[in-house]
Amino acid sequence: MCELFGMSARHPTDVNHSLALLRPRGGEIGPHSDGWGVAFYEGRAARVFKEPVPAAESRCLAFISEYDFQSTTVVAHIRKANPAEIGRASANTHPFERELCGCSWVFAHNGKLPGMRDDPGLTPRRFLPMGDTDSEYAFCLLLDAIAEHGDSACAFSPADFVTRIDRLVEQLAGFGEFNFMLSDGDHLTAPVHSRLHLLRRTCDQEDCQQEVVLLATSPLTDEPWVPLIPGSLYVFAHGTELARKAVSSPLETVSQSPKFENEEMCA
Amino acid sequence: MCELFGMSARHPTDVNHSLALLRPRGGEIGPHSDGWGVAFYEGRAARVFKEPVPAAESRCLAFISEYDFQSTTVVAHIRKANPAEIGRASANTHPFERELCGCSWVFAHNGKLPGMRDDPGLTPRRFLPMGDTDSEYAFCLLLDAIAEHGDSACAFSPADFVTRIDRLVEQLAGFGEFNFMLSDGDHLTAPVHSRLHLLRRTCDQEDCQQEVVLLATSPLTDEPWVPLIPGSLYVFAHGTELARKAVSSPLETVSQSPKFENEEMCA
Repeated sequence: MCELFGMSARHPTDVNHSLALLRPRGGEIGPHSDGWGVAFYEGRAARVFKEPVPAAESRCLAFISEYDFQSTTVVAHIRKANPAEIGRASANTHPFERELCGCSWVFAHNGKLPGMRDDPGLTPRRFLPMGDTDSEYAFCLLLDAIAEHGDSACAFSPADFVTRIDRLVEQLAGFGEFNFMLSDGDHLTAPVHSRLHLLRRTCDQEDCQQEVVLLATSPLTDEPWVPLIPGSLYVFAHGTELARKAVSSPLETVSQSPKFENEEMCA
Repeated sequence: MCELFGMSARHPTDVNHSLALLRPRGGEIGPHSDGWGVAFYEGRAARVFKEPVPAAESRCLAFISEYDFQSTTVVAHIRKANPAEIGRASANTHPFERELCGCSWVFAHNGKLPGMRDDPGLTPRRFLPMGDTDSEYAFCLLLDAIAEHGDSACAFSPADFVTRIDRLVEQLAGFGEFNFMLSDGDHLTAPVHSRLHLLRRTCDQEDCQQEVVLLATSPLTDEPWVPLIPGSLYVFAHGTELARKAVSSPLETVSQSPKFENEEMCA
């Protein structure tokens, strides 16, 4: 099993403190010692840092967690190779990244999907894995599903987006455990198969109100983290929960971010 | 104008010294102060670090140039925004990266291509730019050309590969200046429009012979860097020059690396 971390904020902010708390779980106080990765979005482009070494021992992650990267969307992951024979390598380290419709898409997964590749209907077509993990394979399948609607692939609402991936997410989850985070920079989509926690932070700054949503497999602090409901799916953007979908229910709009009046995935 | 740096080695090695020499040219002793980037390959996957700030002032590049990343293929770039209105942003910072046929492809450009976008025949299709530079736009066109042969896109020899991009490279070069580096991890392809220098280093190590080719817009040291011939194109792999193509001539095989007996781009 791995650990996921995500952040969505109204205004750019750093996640130094969270990364510093996540870091020892990668091989020191937690078993996730096979790699770590962090994607910081700057507009449509993600800057992805990753390394197939224990997070707790990484001088690179220590440096990054003090570097004050400012971002509105962050996805991070610490990896325990599962099964162990899918070894340490950059190509097997989350988050994975691909370009679609001129945006970076980033994906990180907590769980396992044994048997998925034996289904001949589940074969990546346009997006192909570089490594050996089921996680990257599933990411490629998701992007194929998103892209298959042609050139207008990215001009759709969160509801349309969820409709595109919903059946595939359910199908893949049937193979094992499929908690993941998927982002195009603006939106952070988080299907919760078994386990994910949420923390909201708001604060009035000098000339704006900051809103931040933090997501983590296990709470990182003593603050009131809320366990999210297994089987549900959440879409966040700019520090706000935009939409959620309970088991066997349609997507329900929770709030409308001012930046999302036209609801386009790639602004 | 920007500066390019590339490395191809038989066995993994670091480029700490070269990066340390390149760094001050980014805003201290050189004018290329709008960003820097380095891609280190590990197998099929590239780890790309970049930042839209002067290389000379970047604590991140200082850290990386002491981190001993070991790689057989490296592509680096320091950027002077050209034209200046295409501003500093991660999405405008080289090297650019895309996945094709399960490999990371990385591209960095020195030059400018004014008027390229006005040609309706030169419109990216599958690979789309995230930023505003002509460089990334040209990279997308090159990948479209490489990919258009379908699923077997990456099972080809260096000669076939050069045939695929040769006409497009010539066409794009007609818009201005088009020195670039393009890699799939194994191969480093470098068309020389106006200016690129090469340095070979060999050394006998305990149980192997190391061979390294370094490429740079301007020589980095007092060693005997050789200016490459404008209008020519070179393909390097594993520290060896595999092939070259002079103006209006077919590609000529220079050497056959033992690792390339089957001449496949994605091994």
